[in-house]
Amino acid sequence: MSYALNGKGGVSEATRQRILEAAEQLGWRPNEAARALSFSRAGAIGFIIARPPQTLGDESFYMQLITGMETELSKSSTALLLQTVETVEESVEAYRRWAAQGRVDGVVVSDLRHDDPRPAALRQLRLPAVALGGDAQTGLPRVYSDESESVREVITYLAGLGHQRIGYVSGSPTYLHVLNRTKVYTDVMLTLGLEPTVEATDFSVESGRSATRRFLASQRPPTALVYDSDAMAVAGLAVATAAGVPVPHDLSIVAWDDSLLCQVVHPALTAISRDIRALGGVAASHLRAVLQSAARGIPQDPSKDALPDVVQPTPHLVTRASTSPPPTSAMTPAPRSGSRRAKNGKGRVTAGPSTPPDVR
Amino acid sequence: MSYALNGKGGVSEATRQRILEAAEQLGWRPNEAARALSFSRAGAIGFIIARPPQTLGDESFYMQLITGMETELSKSSTALLLQTVETVEESVEAYRRWAAQGRVDGVVVSDLRHDDPRPAALRQLRLPAVALGGDAQTGLPRVYSDESESVREVITYLAGLGHQRIGYVSGSPTYLHVLNRTKVYTDVMLTLGLEPTVEATDFSVESGRSATRRFLASQRPPTALVYDSDAMAVAGLAVATAAGVPVPHDLSIVAWDDSLLCQVVHPALTAISRDIRALGGVAASHLRAVLQSAARGIPQDPSKDALPDVVQPTPHLVTRASTSPPPTSAMTPAPRSGSRRAKNGKGRVTAGPSTPPDVR
Repeated sequence: MSYALNGKGGVSEATRQRILEAAEQLGWRPNEAARALSFSRAGAIGFIIARPPQTLGDESFYMQLITGMETELSKSSTALLLQTVETVEESVEAYRRWAAQGRVDGVVVSDLRHDDPRPAALRQLRLPAVALGGDAQTGLPRVYSDESESVREVITYLAGLGHQRIGYVSGSPTYLHVLNRTKVYTDVMLTLGLEPTVEATDFSVESGRSATRRFLASQRPPTALVYDSDAMAVAGLAVATAAGVPVPHDLSIVAWDDSLLCQVVHPALTAISRDIRALGGVAASHLRAVLQSAARGIPQDPSKDALPDVVQPTPHLVTRASTSPPPTSAMTPAPRSGSRRAKNGKGRVTAGPSTPPDVR
Repeated sequence: MSYALNGKGGVSEATRQRILEAAEQLGWRPNEAARALSFSRAGAIGFIIARPPQTLGDESFYMQLITGMETELSKSSTALLLQTVETVEESVEAYRRWAAQGRVDGVVVSDLRHDDPRPAALRQLRLPAVALGGDAQTGLPRVYSDESESVREVITYLAGLGHQRIGYVSGSPTYLHVLNRTKVYTDVMLTLGLEPTVEATDFSVESGRSATRRFLASQRPPTALVYDSDAMAVAGLAVATAAGVPVPHDLSIVAWDDSLLCQVVHPALTAISRDIRALGGVAASHLRAVLQSAARGIPQDPSKDALPDVVQPTPHLVTRASTSPPPTSAMTPAPRSGSRRAKNGKGRVTAGPSTPPDVR
């Protein structure tokens, strides 16, 4: 057979042609160039999203991430095996099936949790993996950026505008990155002598709405809200507007994951922005590097001899019209004097006399 | 081995336990319940998106669709093998690889084109498939809805408000669904005695912006624009607003694919709405039915004995604040008398004396 495909050896031209046609029909390619680049045997990497599906449709994060992975994977004709599940336990089940069937060469893991069962399961299954975010304790090679610095930048920026009641609409506290963001938010608030207040959600638009309503109905409502996603932030903006709370005059809003949503609403949303497609691409190429190490005989146990983590640029704050100094009535007499009053409700940010935060 | 897993036969309890543990580690499950439900051998279906990746990130359509497929597939522990490519020829290459490697049990095909090479390739590869949309000539079992009726509804609605210059920002004319929508738009306009004007795009936000700019710069700019996606419509809204063309007072806007984007902009966009997640779910379950037919010995050639198409509910028009009668100056003295002037710029739709369209 290989004689026929190579065009060598003692088969007749007619036979050779027949075999080549059969091979063509089967999709075989002699010396397929893409194969050399591919992710070893299975030719696919796996990605399991463990979130309720109803929170995925409005999120641009995953589509951006998947698009980024795909752009990188398409260079080597590698496919992405995608599965959505509700729980991490179901993820582990799927990993077992995939490993048993040789379905994927490796996986990208996201939304890591405290006491997450997946890293240990992947080690046991000898399934190479790269983690998006998470912490060093997962023992997987990681691709991450310093989100703590971004949270610090947002709170410093809002406090610099004069806000003292800054609420946080957090995502689901089951995720490590949410826990980390919440912890940094709390620490920075306490350091500034301000009271942290958190409403936890499940990342759904509906839970973003209710969290906003609870904040606005509280005894001393916040003058600024930071949201853990952009879909929740635009939902919050709609709730505030409908409740007659003008943004940014009476309420400043900051979103995470600066997608098109943040840019098209009115007022446009100040947001923590990162290149999610680039993140997906880097995750895929880092997994390729891990697989190549494994192929060169480096032990596949991801906890040992793992490749160094890849640190991505820190997400940065993009200021738009949804943030301004708080209304005067909300400001207690500050030791730092000077007017920080918003001159109008149009979202123009009037910088106060205090040191402006380092906003890129 | 099967004796050990079944708990029968003459192996010692210790041996049985060892084998079971090994099987457990390998991910094998005795009598795995999910297996019975699964999509036959490969346990995965394939979906290839043949679009430039830069147009995917802002589109909610594909994430909604994939989420819908996943929700259905997760019931049978079936994974989705996803690949993005730039051209349909690359899709065919990927199908050949998948078929040769037994990677998927079947595929869902979208964005069908005129003279699309994929249906024939899939028949040749004996790879069962379901088409999303497309036309009867593809010869594949289809899941589709009557988009012609929706286009007719939109144009009738806008003409009923008094609009005579209604432009169409179409998607890429390589897709059958875009060609169909454009044809119906043109037919309906001509039937009403109005002049059709189309600006074709590649579905990217940037091309939606430029198409809007070209329309606004034309000699007699349109008083209403219909967009082929929601991301392009919000981009068009931003361009109009920035150009000092108030929406809806001077320009009415209608979007396709009513995602969160349409609801959060100001003014909120009138849109053609359909349940995209449901569409994805139905595509997956229809493919399952096709595979089950194939498994029962019905010939796998999708051109013969194919299951009947599944007709989905017609997308319907959701009216919001982005549409109103045109400014008076834009209205030529109409044979149908009566004032249809917009009483204000706030987007309230003042129904004219003509028969109101059947708007759900």
